[in-house]
Amino acid sequence: MTMEPLRQRAKRGPYAKSKQRREDIVAAAHEVFAAHGYRGGSLQDVADKVGLSQTSLLHYFPTKSELLLAVLNWRDTFAAGGQPRDPEESLVEAVIRQAHFNETVPGVIELYTVLCAESVTDNHPGREYFTDRYERLRRSYLRSFTALAEQGRLRPGVDPERAAASLIALWDGIQTQWLMAPERVDMAGCLRDYLEVIVLPPKQPPG
Amino acid sequence: MTMEPLRQRAKRGPYAKSKQRREDIVAAAHEVFAAHGYRGGSLQDVADKVGLSQTSLLHYFPTKSELLLAVLNWRDTFAAGGQPRDPEESLVEAVIRQAHFNETVPGVIELYTVLCAESVTDNHPGREYFTDRYERLRRSYLRSFTALAEQGRLRPGVDPERAAASLIALWDGIQTQWLMAPERVDMAGCLRDYLEVIVLPPKQPPG
Repeated sequence: MTMEPLRQRAKRGPYAKSKQRREDIVAAAHEVFAAHGYRGGSLQDVADKVGLSQTSLLHYFPTKSELLLAVLNWRDTFAAGGQPRDPEESLVEAVIRQAHFNETVPGVIELYTVLCAESVTDNHPGREYFTDRYERLRRSYLRSFTALAEQGRLRPGVDPERAAASLIALWDGIQTQWLMAPERVDMAGCLRDYLEVIVLPPKQPPG
Repeated sequence: MTMEPLRQRAKRGPYAKSKQRREDIVAAAHEVFAAHGYRGGSLQDVADKVGLSQTSLLHYFPTKSELLLAVLNWRDTFAAGGQPRDPEESLVEAVIRQAHFNETVPGVIELYTVLCAESVTDNHPGREYFTDRYERLRRSYLRSFTALAEQGRLRPGVDPERAAASLIALWDGIQTQWLMAPERVDMAGCLRDYLEVIVLPPKQPPG
């Protein structure tokens, strides 16, 4: 993200206007990249959507790849589903809640699916973002599954590390099938089935 | 696929040459689409790789979308892994064998991953191919899981329809993670874990 010049930040009006303009550009880029991919979407299309010239657009985002990273960062904030995970909420409940939320934002899921796969192509500016994201997510679910294993709640024989990678993989893959045939694929149901088969119910206290 | 004119097919030499040229173009297009996606890859890049002008290339494949479908059909043949499934081979064994084969052909996996996700974008010529492919695959695995359920070999509570979609989803998703970090992700291991937890071992005959 580029910094606003200090002079503009000191004056309230132009800064607020510039911030709003940046947000409008990111929202427009989100639509363009979701519909055409990063490589297929053009800066001209983004500029047209917000009523700017391409030269003016480049004042806010000097390169197309900076705009891509701004879109991905915006997606991270949005994808949190509006509310952070309650500490009392179980892993299973949190995953199902997020999956139901995702069903309400197909455009965001399409953007994620398209850019993630595209990022494995040569010299794609999103590659590091997605590689890091997967590393971070695998570590996070590994911690959850390890904690469940310590409570005797991971099915015997299930490897926490492969389960972490598998949960993320299942989630990504089922989103792709859902985007193509939403009426044929039960995203939340598939995730629930998987978690219910590998995570055992909490032990009831004796008595 | 366009048909060769009859006159050319009658003469052995030019037909064989034309067939070879078509195969060379498909192989080149495979490389270009895997590296840049369908939208990002240009016909000029494909023509350059086989030493043809773009005009000559269009003699073999009149449109870029026809070339895409030829590449996808070629991939189907190739992805069978060189050998059809032995009738005695179990579903689990067949999936693991294919997953190990896939590890030897990262370029084919990259092509599939990139084009499949790209096909959810607006007016993509590969959309129908991938939608049909998922429908067909879900039906095929549904038959396998239903047969296992009838033998009492599907874990109680596992829904065969959602398990079919989930197996495909897990496979797609783990391939994406593997493309980004092959040394960090055990594709065949994740698929084996999933199948071993939902499919029960065959009952031993009594005695």
